[in-house]
Amino acid sequence: MSLSFVDFIDVLGTYSFAVSGAFAAIEKKLDLFGILILAFITSIGGGTIRDLLIGNTPVTWLQHPSIAWVIAAGAASTLLFGRRLKQIQSLLTAFDAIGLGLFTIIGIQKGILYHLSPGVCIALGTITGCFGGVIRDVVLNKVPLIFQKEIYASASILGGITYFLLVKISVPEIIAAAISILLIFATRMLSIRYKWHLPVWHQPK
Amino acid sequence: MSLSFVDFIDVLGTYSFAVSGAFAAIEKKLDLFGILILAFITSIGGGTIRDLLIGNTPVTWLQHPSIAWVIAAGAASTLLFGRRLKQIQSLLTAFDAIGLGLFTIIGIQKGILYHLSPGVCIALGTITGCFGGVIRDVVLNKVPLIFQKEIYASASILGGITYFLLVKISVPEIIAAAISILLIFATRMLSIRYKWHLPVWHQPK
Amino acid sequence: MSLSFVDFIDVLGTYSFAVSGAFAAIEKKLDLFGILILAFITSIGGGTIRDLLIGNTPVTWLQHPSIAWVIAAGAASTLLFGRRLKQIQSLLTAFDAIGLGLFTIIGIQKGILYHLSPGVCIALGTITGCFGGVIRDVVLNKVPLIFQKEIYASASILGGITYFLLVKISVPEIIAAAISILLIFATRMLSIRYKWHLPVWHQPK
Repeated sequence: MSLSFVDFIDVLGTYSFAVSGAFAAIEKKLDLFGILILAFITSIGGGTIRDLLIGNTPVTWLQHPSIAWVIAAGAASTLLFGRRLKQIQSLLTAFDAIGLGLFTIIGIQKGILYHLSPGVCIALGTITGCFGGVIRDVVLNKVPLIFQKEIYASASILGGITYFLLVKISVPEIIAAAISILLIFATRMLSIRYKWHLPVWHQPK
Repeated sequence: MSLSFVDFIDVLGTYSFAVSGAFAAIEKKLDLFGILILAFITSIGGGTIRDLLIGNTPVTWLQHPSIAWVIAAGAASTLLFGRRLKQIQSLLTAFDAIGLGLFTIIGIQKGILYHLSPGVCIALGTITGCFGGVIRDVVLNKVPLIFQKEIYASASILGGITYFLLVKISVPEIIAAAISILLIFATRMLSIRYKWHLPVWHQPK
Repeated sequence: MSLSFVDFIDVLGTYSFAVSGAFAAIEKKLDLFGILILAFITSIGGGTIRDLLIGNTPVTWLQHPSIAWVIAAGAASTLLFGRRLKQIQSLLTAFDAIGLGLFTIIGIQKGILYHLSPGVCIALGTITGCFGGVIRDVVLNKVPLIFQKEIYASASILGGITYFLLVKISVPEIIAAAISILLIFATRMLSIRYKWHLPVWHQPK
């Protein structure tokens, strides 16, 4: 896949997740530094865990420190437009859903680069997409949202499977990536709109 | 030590911890995906931290993705037999205690493979045995059980020391491993049965 | 910088953080093993995350297991002199502030050794200084102190910037390090004494 396309979705996803992290920090009334750090952790958390697991060190954000500016921009715009952004909550959810789609595909690309099997690549994609949010919630002392009632990681896995199926039937990689990102985005947005969720297990009586 | 023996205890330990993780997730009313992920994290958490610390990347479960089937089997059997398993709580505790013994010895073997000193090997064994449970508890927003009142990590350390002492007096490795696993298992089970615990520190008046 | 000087501040910082971790564990009424582990995690947590991020494995404390004795000494002295130490709370805060300064500079030195850019080195210094405490708080189920109202990470960043500025104007490294450590220590202590803090963000009305 062309490098510039991956770079582009990387920047967009990073910005989206920085906004989501900064919002969570503001809600918990953290100070300015806390807001910046939460934006940072949420943005780079998933990719960092992925890099550590596959042994890609120094991890990506240490090699490309310019990513810090994207994150700072995300945190700053949240602070500046915070009230307005909150009114348009659905826009935020959309940002997060875009980030999920973009980072899932980036994680899968890294797995392919390391010659890992499709199943492992999908797992890496899901980790890249979801675990920034997991760390954000754990640090803020909440049970991670993705383990609870929403279609989140499931959308990421669905998109990952779709990507490999499309590539297998000879769809060009860049088209397969775009379709998968859109599918993850749409699944996530529709699941919120129509309150889809996975079953909670009730102990049989 | 023969590879097949290590493989065998690895699969058994993985299954045991997957059951324990799935149970914790059901108690917190997570959805199906949350249950699967908790089973996963609890099973591979300790070994993953160990691999990261010694630099064994890609980490083990990325190199042997078939381990995912063992974990899925553990989660599935918890869902299917959940109610019955709960009635036989002591069986579950036994599973967890077996897992602790097995994973401690596996962690020690990895340390030996990396030519680390006995003290460090024992630390790695304890991390492999205990930290899947630590991550499980942290993600579920609880103070990790092992830091509280029970003999848990202590049993693992005791078993590790015993292993090295036995090997030093020329007991064959596989026998030393089996004895240590049994010792960890027995210490853990007896500590529950007779409510042994380490002293809690009371501030002197 | 001379190796022995780095070694010296490393031992001192390790001891300081072990005391701080052991105290937090006693407050949460953990058992003896829990106290030891908390002292350990708080001491080596920041350096371990730094080592993992830059790919320095096996991580430092696996290569120098003698560090465990320093940590054990820290935990033991907390247990023995706990009541007295508490009366002199300000001494403890001072220990923690010294640890913060020392570990920040150690993290920066590691970054320089890996030929990373100044900005990244400062980030690594801050991680080394602060993230032991973050892990301590997360494991004990609290929102990490450093994300809340105090000047903590900010002091570490300030010291890091000062270090690079001083080296740039040809101040010898060991002098620049000593000045930066003192600056971090002083900033932290003064911020407690005069209750400085970063602004908490209030949603504009």
